[in-house]
Amino acid sequence: MTEDVRLPTAADVREAADRIAGHAVRTPLLSSPRLDARLGGRLLIKAESLQRVGAFKFRGAVNRISRLTEEERARGVLAFSSGNHAQAVAHAAALFGVSAVIVMPEDAPAVKLRNTREYGAEVVTYDRYTEDREGVGMAVAAERGMVVVPPFDDPHVIAGQGTLGLEVVQQARERGATLDAFVVPTSGGGLTAGCALALEAESPATELWGTEPVDFDDTRRSLEAGERVRNDPAARSICDAVQTETPGRLTFGINQRLLTGIVTVTDDEALEAMAVAMTELKVVVEPGGAIALAAALTGRVEVEGRTVAVVCSGGNADPGVLVRALERL
Amino acid sequence: MTEDVRLPTAADVREAADRIAGHAVRTPLLSSPRLDARLGGRLLIKAESLQRVGAFKFRGAVNRISRLTEEERARGVLAFSSGNHAQAVAHAAALFGVSAVIVMPEDAPAVKLRNTREYGAEVVTYDRYTEDREGVGMAVAAERGMVVVPPFDDPHVIAGQGTLGLEVVQQARERGATLDAFVVPTSGGGLTAGCALALEAESPATELWGTEPVDFDDTRRSLEAGERVRNDPAARSICDAVQTETPGRLTFGINQRLLTGIVTVTDDEALEAMAVAMTELKVVVEPGGAIALAAALTGRVEVEGRTVAVVCSGGNADPGVLVRALERL
Repeated sequence: MTEDVRLPTAADVREAADRIAGHAVRTPLLSSPRLDARLGGRLLIKAESLQRVGAFKFRGAVNRISRLTEEERARGVLAFSSGNHAQAVAHAAALFGVSAVIVMPEDAPAVKLRNTREYGAEVVTYDRYTEDREGVGMAVAAERGMVVVPPFDDPHVIAGQGTLGLEVVQQARERGATLDAFVVPTSGGGLTAGCALALEAESPATELWGTEPVDFDDTRRSLEAGERVRNDPAARSICDAVQTETPGRLTFGINQRLLTGIVTVTDDEALEAMAVAMTELKVVVEPGGAIALAAALTGRVEVEGRTVAVVCSGGNADPGVLVRALERL
Repeated sequence: MTEDVRLPTAADVREAADRIAGHAVRTPLLSSPRLDARLGGRLLIKAESLQRVGAFKFRGAVNRISRLTEEERARGVLAFSSGNHAQAVAHAAALFGVSAVIVMPEDAPAVKLRNTREYGAEVVTYDRYTEDREGVGMAVAAERGMVVVPPFDDPHVIAGQGTLGLEVVQQARERGATLDAFVVPTSGGGLTAGCALALEAESPATELWGTEPVDFDDTRRSLEAGERVRNDPAARSICDAVQTETPGRLTFGINQRLLTGIVTVTDDEALEAMAVAMTELKVVVEPGGAIALAAALTGRVEVEGRTVAVVCSGGNADPGVLVRALERL
């Protein structure tokens, strides 16, 4: 996918942290005494919705784009994405003075399509259920000579996402906490793999749990099968941000080695977690961004008697979805 | 109201910052490139919804309660409040092992009544339109020998709230910004006065604007009249957190000397600002907490060509109010 295909390491994550400093926000690690009382443990919530462009994807995009050569910058970048990666590449490219084309599913949330355009990128759409996004993206890139910034299966993207894991470990330490478990939303596996590298180096005793929507549990089934398997193309979920077809090659290699396991959550549980995030934590989280929190709230990852960090990985939800979550209260 | 009636100073605010460190959250100062583009200036948003108990009130409550003598701690504390101060005193008291009684209007948002009880306080209710909250509160306090923690008109409470102003100035400096204006929601005036002291010492060239709901503009009219005047008891607003009858004596003294002015916003403008906070900033803000942001978004405080900090002072909104805000989009 890029010329550099070696697996990233914890050193790459640390270097990425230096590269993104000054561009990315060190998002807060929140807590709620009342949630802790309810769960009988200590829950730390990484509010990555407050990241630039509203999602962790900005970290990987900045790390990748900061490494372009002068010649590559002149050609521009292209990304194919269900939404947050699109905004991330669009905004990161603009910050580095690089032109960007984004290939997006035509049924992506309206707010994500609009925002991507507002960041200055050109948007090319495709049908998520009949067309192959990589195929569409690679064709445009080849035609225009642009550098593809993959959403997850790239060493620099993985390393960039891993900076989130580094931060959580540091922020937990600052308040005297040692993490028994760390829970992340899992889609293509870039965030999960990056955080796995950070935890392996900085907090090796911490369990790392991925979370997937029940009908998009490709990583869970791939771990079981020992090889990458695909989701049913007929599957649907409200969690638009975590619907890849199959794990990445690089990400799966890392996750297979380092993941404690994967838990799954339903759309209803994701909506419930969104409502809790809004009313207890005062943070807006999109459905796919709320599934790790849902895993903790449902007890699918045990919080009782433990210290558990969950990542709320993005907040770019359509207002109607936020209303649906609030109406459950 | 307390034995210590001297006016607080910037030194008191600095001392309060030391006292609340480790208890209160250093809440993030957010920004949004797309909001900045829309406003033609630089807007920095203090996301104080992310404070413990969901509002700035925790700062003043911790500062005041941390100064109780052993004998006072044994007697317990009492607060009369429209909601956020109630939760703040309840939670701060619990942290210091002090018992608390909270006197609240019976029509306060359900979430605030429930949360106050969940923090471990005893709640005594009164009718906001027929009874005098200070009268009710003082009677209970006298009967039980409790120390009253006033919501705003107390030097230690004012100094505690001022720590928010200190933080904003420091956080702006960290990103190389000098503030042309600072905008806060104004109710009893504690946050406004505390921030005024912080700005006078740390950023004296910065304009300080208070914001009030149009029908609760007691501070605006008091500044005009040169003396403290009252709001119409028949006035109603969705902004429940900023509905005091009249400015405090201490707070008005400070605000009269240091405030640039007061602007007013409508309920609709507050709801609009809440929607912007949720979708652009990913932060939940309650109506009264959103009025300073509304002042900037409406241009009532000019952002164009300037750097302006606004305080989103709290996030304890009932879900139905959040839905009303989202349905405007």
